[in-house]
Amino acid sequence: MLRWLTSGESHGPSLVGVMEGLPAGVELTTHDLRAALARRRLGYGRGARMKFEQDEVRVLGGLRHGVTQGGPLAIEIGNTEWPKWVDVMAPDPVEADALTVDAGTGDVREVARNKRLTRPRPGHADLVGMRKYAFDDARPVLERASARETATRVALGTAAARFLEQAVGVRLVSHVVAIGEAETPDGATAPTPDDVARLDADPVRCLDAAASAAMVAEIDAAHKDGDTLGGVVEVLAYGVPTGLGSYVQGDRRLDARLAGALMGIQAIKGVEVGDGFRTARRRGSVAHDEIVRGADGRVTRLTNRAGGVEGGMSNGEVLRVRAAMKPISTVPRALRTIDTATGEPATANHQRSDVCAVPPAAVVAEAMVALVLAEAVVEKFGGDSVAEVRRNAEAYLAAIPEPLR
Amino acid sequence: MLRWLTSGESHGPSLVGVMEGLPAGVELTTHDLRAALARRRLGYGRGARMKFEQDEVRVLGGLRHGVTQGGPLAIEIGNTEWPKWVDVMAPDPVEADALTVDAGTGDVREVARNKRLTRPRPGHADLVGMRKYAFDDARPVLERASARETATRVALGTAAARFLEQAVGVRLVSHVVAIGEAETPDGATAPTPDDVARLDADPVRCLDAAASAAMVAEIDAAHKDGDTLGGVVEVLAYGVPTGLGSYVQGDRRLDARLAGALMGIQAIKGVEVGDGFRTARRRGSVAHDEIVRGADGRVTRLTNRAGGVEGGMSNGEVLRVRAAMKPISTVPRALRTIDTATGEPATANHQRSDVCAVPPAAVVAEAMVALVLAEAVVEKFGGDSVAEVRRNAEAYLAAIPEPLR
Amino acid sequence: MLRWLTSGESHGPSLVGVMEGLPAGVELTTHDLRAALARRRLGYGRGARMKFEQDEVRVLGGLRHGVTQGGPLAIEIGNTEWPKWVDVMAPDPVEADALTVDAGTGDVREVARNKRLTRPRPGHADLVGMRKYAFDDARPVLERASARETATRVALGTAAARFLEQAVGVRLVSHVVAIGEAETPDGATAPTPDDVARLDADPVRCLDAAASAAMVAEIDAAHKDGDTLGGVVEVLAYGVPTGLGSYVQGDRRLDARLAGALMGIQAIKGVEVGDGFRTARRRGSVAHDEIVRGADGRVTRLTNRAGGVEGGMSNGEVLRVRAAMKPISTVPRALRTIDTATGEPATANHQRSDVCAVPPAAVVAEAMVALVLAEAVVEKFGGDSVAEVRRNAEAYLAAIPEPLR
Amino acid sequence: MLRWLTSGESHGPSLVGVMEGLPAGVELTTHDLRAALARRRLGYGRGARMKFEQDEVRVLGGLRHGVTQGGPLAIEIGNTEWPKWVDVMAPDPVEADALTVDAGTGDVREVARNKRLTRPRPGHADLVGMRKYAFDDARPVLERASARETATRVALGTAAARFLEQAVGVRLVSHVVAIGEAETPDGATAPTPDDVARLDADPVRCLDAAASAAMVAEIDAAHKDGDTLGGVVEVLAYGVPTGLGSYVQGDRRLDARLAGALMGIQAIKGVEVGDGFRTARRRGSVAHDEIVRGADGRVTRLTNRAGGVEGGMSNGEVLRVRAAMKPISTVPRALRTIDTATGEPATANHQRSDVCAVPPAAVVAEAMVALVLAEAVVEKFGGDSVAEVRRNAEAYLAAIPEPLR
Repeated sequence: MLRWLTSGESHGPSLVGVMEGLPAGVELTTHDLRAALARRRLGYGRGARMKFEQDEVRVLGGLRHGVTQGGPLAIEIGNTEWPKWVDVMAPDPVEADALTVDAGTGDVREVARNKRLTRPRPGHADLVGMRKYAFDDARPVLERASARETATRVALGTAAARFLEQAVGVRLVSHVVAIGEAETPDGATAPTPDDVARLDADPVRCLDAAASAAMVAEIDAAHKDGDTLGGVVEVLAYGVPTGLGSYVQGDRRLDARLAGALMGIQAIKGVEVGDGFRTARRRGSVAHDEIVRGADGRVTRLTNRAGGVEGGMSNGEVLRVRAAMKPISTVPRALRTIDTATGEPATANHQRSDVCAVPPAAVVAEAMVALVLAEAVVEKFGGDSVAEVRRNAEAYLAAIPEPLR
Repeated sequence: MLRWLTSGESHGPSLVGVMEGLPAGVELTTHDLRAALARRRLGYGRGARMKFEQDEVRVLGGLRHGVTQGGPLAIEIGNTEWPKWVDVMAPDPVEADALTVDAGTGDVREVARNKRLTRPRPGHADLVGMRKYAFDDARPVLERASARETATRVALGTAAARFLEQAVGVRLVSHVVAIGEAETPDGATAPTPDDVARLDADPVRCLDAAASAAMVAEIDAAHKDGDTLGGVVEVLAYGVPTGLGSYVQGDRRLDARLAGALMGIQAIKGVEVGDGFRTARRRGSVAHDEIVRGADGRVTRLTNRAGGVEGGMSNGEVLRVRAAMKPISTVPRALRTIDTATGEPATANHQRSDVCAVPPAAVVAEAMVALVLAEAVVEKFGGDSVAEVRRNAEAYLAAIPEPLR
Repeated sequence: MLRWLTSGESHGPSLVGVMEGLPAGVELTTHDLRAALARRRLGYGRGARMKFEQDEVRVLGGLRHGVTQGGPLAIEIGNTEWPKWVDVMAPDPVEADALTVDAGTGDVREVARNKRLTRPRPGHADLVGMRKYAFDDARPVLERASARETATRVALGTAAARFLEQAVGVRLVSHVVAIGEAETPDGATAPTPDDVARLDADPVRCLDAAASAAMVAEIDAAHKDGDTLGGVVEVLAYGVPTGLGSYVQGDRRLDARLAGALMGIQAIKGVEVGDGFRTARRRGSVAHDEIVRGADGRVTRLTNRAGGVEGGMSNGEVLRVRAAMKPISTVPRALRTIDTATGEPATANHQRSDVCAVPPAAVVAEAMVALVLAEAVVEKFGGDSVAEVRRNAEAYLAAIPEPLR
Repeated sequence: MLRWLTSGESHGPSLVGVMEGLPAGVELTTHDLRAALARRRLGYGRGARMKFEQDEVRVLGGLRHGVTQGGPLAIEIGNTEWPKWVDVMAPDPVEADALTVDAGTGDVREVARNKRLTRPRPGHADLVGMRKYAFDDARPVLERASARETATRVALGTAAARFLEQAVGVRLVSHVVAIGEAETPDGATAPTPDDVARLDADPVRCLDAAASAAMVAEIDAAHKDGDTLGGVVEVLAYGVPTGLGSYVQGDRRLDARLAGALMGIQAIKGVEVGDGFRTARRRGSVAHDEIVRGADGRVTRLTNRAGGVEGGMSNGEVLRVRAAMKPISTVPRALRTIDTATGEPATANHQRSDVCAVPPAAVVAEAMVALVLAEAVVEKFGGDSVAEVRRNAEAYLAAIPEPLR
């Protein structure tokens, strides 16, 4: 059982992720975490915040001398802008006066930060969050609903990914397959974990040069029009051992868990395993992956339409999932809304924002897949140390009878 | 907290579903359950089994005089073919002899039932299940992985749906939007709960007459070619109170839960909330649902692209989700596989099967949505009786300030 | 992850237990289940119901040819008295008339069964259950709160115990250490699994002849006085591998889980691990179990005050837990209560009852310990088949460095 | 659903507690948290660490302007001694040299801190933890297994207690009923929440002056003898609404949850609800709490032997639970053990320690009870804000029919 929770507000003192159940002996450093968080900030079309948002990472528990200790991992990601928000987001009560003045910088935005937000943005949690939690201000909603929270997921997912690689040799890679109308061509070669550096270097995390250029052009066009874009990301996991997940109960299915995890990312509206919706249009004779014995004498498949999952279990092929992200809701060209203080029509609050957040969403999706797979590995193989998990996994694979391998 | 488990093998004595956490006072009868199970057997292109598979429903616990009692509900769905399987699937050990003779009917299929199944079917759980659970026979895998298990989900989902309607006025409807290449036209009117009888009467659970005819034609063509078909189903929920689910933690999001539940249905490979993948192609200015005050003075939306979920919460609009089903894997024109007894190439076991199971998948998806919504309602409103849940829900809605309603 | 739910009312058609997560390959038969249920009916001082309550056991899922199949196990325990309750406890609505006549037996108790129960019994769930679930009748409460439900726990616990023995060699034994004021002497030798037949043969499940006689005398005296008795039971588990449970999070502690499971049995009011409350009176120098190397060269302890659990983990010594049961609440000499129909003072409903239910409580406690340990084994060792669990457990134990063994 | 996790090592940079599911609108400040943590440090017989261990509390998420925001609460408790441990407990790898020198203070203890701990202490997690997690050093075990972790539980429990009081009027109090052989007399008056200040002022958190003096004398005597002491603590909750928990499933029982939570505290070996083990000795006619109508016209009880829980549910009386704590395992007069580096006999590592940790254990137990009750309240009443929870609770109580109140 792997459990994790995240906490923290977008402009609060820090974000915290706590993960419980990760075996001891995983090699991990704050450098790994920083590098992963830096990858999350990459991507063409992102706003100014990404530039000055240096993630201050502190590991508060569970890690010693670069090795996990069996106990819960706690990772804090400090907010470098905290001094500007110290009154607005203070945990303790503040004097009313403190909220009506700027922070001494002469910057009028200081005062704006303190104002009640009453024009909920369509596509955001604002309106419903105010109803649900009985707030008269959207501030508490947007602070927690913000995609900034995904930084903690990336941090925890990095620990999960390190575990997966060290214990069972799983390696992950994520990329962008569509931004707006621009997309990678059908039949494009899937990236492998060895392509990660090239993907990081691409402005839109896309290996196909023409598609990448088209995506950049889409972003430029949308930016010019004061508009925003969504897209589709794909995560691949190589080396996933056969038999993770199960068919015995619906919620044990690996695909169900992946779908839940991906759809649980902010702004995701669709999820596919393997060929997903395309498979629904095919006939059965050309929709499945025939089972043959490969040149190496091992069981293999002629295709991988299933995306590495059959019967709710990893089948030994490359795991492949996609997530569709809606365009950013904070549209420069403001959308219609109501003012909750008066009930009158209004235009939505506009927060500083990006044109397109699809490239970082790929990194976040990769983290979520890592977390799901790590949980499935712990469940299948048990074990409290990396060595024990690895031993159990190897013994399991070795015990599969020859004809079934 | 609503918890449920299903048990039972496809050809075992019976299937059982147990659900815990449903409030007391839900009006429910075995007639309701039988009617729901009958709807699951509908649909053009289904095989012979559906005809003689009369579901024998028994409620073993949790229901008295047509009203739930607060305790766990247990529903048994008997297997009317059990006499033919009594030895093959016997819980207790049987004499070896019993498995090498027919059941006295002179029917050679009797003996076939007893044989070890060693030609795993591509697209099924067979191969991986044998590896995972260390079986030398695919029988235990296919018995549990079979979609027959969805009968229990439909039964439990019926109880959940009755609760939803009685406690908070939610009503559900499901329909088919695509079978193979045939699909409902863009912009087709969505069905409402009042259309259920018409949908039940349609051979493919589709209100659009032309699309329905095209779907039937697809099925006929596939049948003629010895092939199978998948498709896309949609579930709509009307009257969902605003504020189910939450943005505060990824796994509390209503969309995440819906996606996990739908992807957890056998053969589902893709899930969308609202416009899903289509939304990923749009620009932000035309991708969200502007907030306005309607003619009735209530907050409403000009569109419902989000499918009734914003920020991981129901927003008061119609909830709308889709699931993509792959074509049935047991293809009459057999697929390549290996024989696990010998390791040699083979063609896959062919089980008696349907051409297309998309219409019943709509009913199953509807059940899963009902289960997720019921859980979300219990979580949001608490309460141990229908009256208490209703009272809490009504008080919550009444307490939302006028400008936010 | 091992999950299980029970369902069913005391006088309903049947009880059902469903357990999910038990590995494949556990050898189990309905004979095992029947034998375990028969042990639960043993014990001096039990009422008439035990005699004619033959448990009709049916395994509905998860078991084939005497071996678990990886899927959820479902066990139904039929109510042999069901024909007498068919109207009173009918799942579906019945004609009002059916509840005002007897069942054709001429037995006036038939009509009594149909009456609303409005005199809640102190010590039972009746009063609070009516408030919580908004019932005007205690019938639904007592039907589900009844200790008859423990039959399902014993059935599921039997499967868990078979798994424990076959996968990791754990064997359990339970006995009675006190009934009322009669108790086993301090320092009495603890029974081992080889004593189970003798314990089954003893009227009060107690190996110490003098204590057993004293307990029987207590029961006779209480019976004569129209009174009831409680007592204390103890469960021991031999062969528990070291390292189940964990200190890393409070709810992962094995002792925490055992305490929750035991206190979750009807009528249990206290739980101890090892010497429990007696240890609280000792000084530290004589309260712990010193670590030495035994004659066999293995690490051992000079004492076992801790009951086999240190730091929330099994330490390789015999696991030992106790549970204190309050006397049966349905006292022949009726207790004061109120009539909920009128609000007036009354005496409590008296249901047919036993004088002392402590011996069966030992069997139930043993089942709960088996369930907790099985879950802990699955969590520690992973594995989907008995062979895989065993292999992982053996490799883990073999990998413990010599000095630590 | 209320979920919480703690993280952090005893000598690490900080401890962190994250709690998810607490409604919005709870008034809480870091002052409240600091005060609660100060109460945990009270108590006669505690070692030097308590004096200089000033808890540095920071709320990292979930709280704004003294009010919870609906999102997860994250509380960090800094380690004021961290500068001394910065190398020994560094999350990232350190130069080998750094671990062989002191921290520049000239203090030889600096070097000692860095040494591998290989003499596991009886009664601690040390030995088993090393086996389970494959450590060759007990340091990682004792760092996490240490009772210092309870500081996070007290912090989270404080938030839970504030919620309970503000939403449903529950108030808690904890006290010590025994230390070693010294105990409060039978029939002593139970403290109420109004006695908290007096209990805080007592050296052993005991209202009875004579018992308090006897406890202090026990501690003095043990201290003189180089020994340690355990004892028994009791937690009472006033104003608990009737109907928390349930009889419908074993793990929903409030007593089961309380027992699990209390036994999950470090060093606890026994748990009682109400009169616990004493009740097991009584006859039924004098073991239950008769139901009568009080002078105020409300249903009440003549006694409260059940400790406020019947049928696994709160019955409206004062909730009362006890926990038995074993004496501190780190005994100055060292216990026998083995050296895990050599396998040779040795005496156990002795860490700086207290003589008696019973008074703080009362505070920790109170926190655990608060967490369990808060979860039960959220489950029973639902609600996402304090106002909503309160409204639902009040409506529920108001709807109980007069005769049942």
